[in-house]
Amino acid sequence: MSERIWTAGLIVIGDEILSGRTQDRNIAALAIWLEREGIRLAEVRIVPDDRARIVQAVRACQDAFDYLFTTGGIGPTHDDITVDAVAEALDVPVVVHPRAKEMLEAYYAARGTLVTEARLRMARVPQGAELIENRASGAPGIRCGNLFLLAGIPAVAAQMLEALAGTLEGGARMRSQTIGCWGAESEVADLLAACANDHPACTIGSYPFLKDGRGAANFVLRSTDEAALAACRADLEARLREAGKEPEAAGL
Amino acid sequence: MSERIWTAGLIVIGDEILSGRTQDRNIAALAIWLEREGIRLAEVRIVPDDRARIVQAVRACQDAFDYLFTTGGIGPTHDDITVDAVAEALDVPVVVHPRAKEMLEAYYAARGTLVTEARLRMARVPQGAELIENRASGAPGIRCGNLFLLAGIPAVAAQMLEALAGTLEGGARMRSQTIGCWGAESEVADLLAACANDHPACTIGSYPFLKDGRGAANFVLRSTDEAALAACRADLEARLREAGKEPEAAGL
Repeated sequence: MSERIWTAGLIVIGDEILSGRTQDRNIAALAIWLEREGIRLAEVRIVPDDRARIVQAVRACQDAFDYLFTTGGIGPTHDDITVDAVAEALDVPVVVHPRAKEMLEAYYAARGTLVTEARLRMARVPQGAELIENRASGAPGIRCGNLFLLAGIPAVAAQMLEALAGTLEGGARMRSQTIGCWGAESEVADLLAACANDHPACTIGSYPFLKDGRGAANFVLRSTDEAALAACRADLEARLREAGKEPEAAGL
Repeated sequence: MSERIWTAGLIVIGDEILSGRTQDRNIAALAIWLEREGIRLAEVRIVPDDRARIVQAVRACQDAFDYLFTTGGIGPTHDDITVDAVAEALDVPVVVHPRAKEMLEAYYAARGTLVTEARLRMARVPQGAELIENRASGAPGIRCGNLFLLAGIPAVAAQMLEALAGTLEGGARMRSQTIGCWGAESEVADLLAACANDHPACTIGSYPFLKDGRGAANFVLRSTDEAALAACRADLEARLREAGKEPEAAGL
């Protein structure tokens, strides 16, 4: 397969994730969204609310992937430093985006309150940025070329992704199929390895678990090529049956 | 505070996390465990089941933190490549650990089955490694100096951490307190910033959310110094009251 693979990186910014206080929900949501867009999530980094560490992560990831996303740190409080850090990483000043300011003014006017200086923080963007307008919040997401700054609150981040849907160039969608079987995965490790080796256009992941007190495993086959995926699946099912294992068609 | 801060990095190895198929549970669990041990989780990287990418991540993180953990990829199947990748990163060969082999043989003998070649994969370690024995699995975790290879299955990883509890050098435990208040966080952004500025031994994180259709936020104060934390809390409560906000003592 010489097809171009489009990749994305994600930098999750947040002390609350690194302290274990908050269970991240954005990684899996972005991964699934990217897959629909034909883009593969290739790496995630979680860093603290520390300007130097964010700058370092953005610089390290910026050219490593086709797209780079961040979540978190774009609100109005002192610990929201993503815009400043990204501007520093991109070596551009922070400016107030006129349209973002208008949106915030309209949002707060409709609620009978004023745009304070703190709220205006949410109109600050790295120079040259575009906005990712969304229905969930008066504060937009921010796009700087192939770098996307999303909110940390999962419902708001999801709205920003919805606004971006269909706008990024991607490749063929990754297809996946799952087959399950009972027993320890070590019983089928050899046939899995042989099958993976014979189907280089597919990857086979093996995920063991306990269910109803018995060992079981799911095998996830993944490929952008549907014919290759179907052939791999048929081959794996045949090999499992040959080993006395009944494959469970949709996984366990 | 000139006190030594102990830090850890975590490399999560797993296509299933990057595809969004599986919601990671190990990051928050490790973060909470580390906090109890007086160690701060300073960065997480999630990388695919790709040997070169794992080697690169281990090399990048190995000297950046006091401790480095990995989760995932230590099972018996072809996609379990963590041991090989870590050995390459450390520039040592992979060897069969005699005690790990014994443990696997005993584990499978007790279940009336044999140790196959695939199962013996789980006794392979980077040369010089020690085992992290645990009650959940016949396959131990692996320790190479300050690098710890844990299972990807959360229940098994948790047992390996339990086996490690109290064995790592750490510093003062991070203490945290949470105060909540109703309203948009932008209404209190200025007083939060001033309070954070006046209490440099503490950090204040602001976490907004919607509850019962109303805006609310929790403020998480964190410090290793209990007196400083109490002073910061009293100051923040006073500032909130002065702004007409009733602080909710345990958060919302």
